[in-house]
Amino acid sequence: MCEANAYLKEGEDEILFMEAVDIIEPFEDGLKLVDIFGKQKFLRARIMDMTLLNHRILLEHVPIPAEAAHASSHS
Amino acid sequence: MCEANAYLKEGEDEILFMEAVDIIEPFEDGLKLVDIFGKQKFLRARIMDMTLLNHRILLEHVPIPAEAAHASSHS
Repeated sequence: MCEANAYLKEGEDEILFMEAVDIIEPFEDGLKLVDIFGKQKFLRARIMDMTLLNHRILLEHVPIPAEAAHASSHS
Repeated sequence: MCEANAYLKEGEDEILFMEAVDIIEPFEDGLKLVDIFGKQKFLRARIMDMTLLNHRILLEHVPIPAEAAHASSHS
């Protein structure tokens, strides 16, 4: 099967975020990932790179825009 | 094999941009795509969504920032 494992970049490390990913779609200001069993995960991230023959997708966090971070710290 | 075909969104259409894509990496303000034979293509685009079990990746153009467009029209 041609699903892939999605890893999340955490500093110098790459943490396995989801296995057997089939679908990745934009969702709000991040991504929705769906695995081959239909399980869904959401993440404020973007695709950094991918190597399909190695079944690897690397994601990186999307920084929260300054004004959103400022607003949430004062609510 | 688990490569995928990369399509480019052109209005309502989806145009086949590259077959048998193995690697997609960020490159300058767009993407570098490498197929299973090592052939490379570059495109000012981002990944819109993907369905790996269908071997489909959909790309969309990245708009040229206003000041870049303005500068190039006056050079």
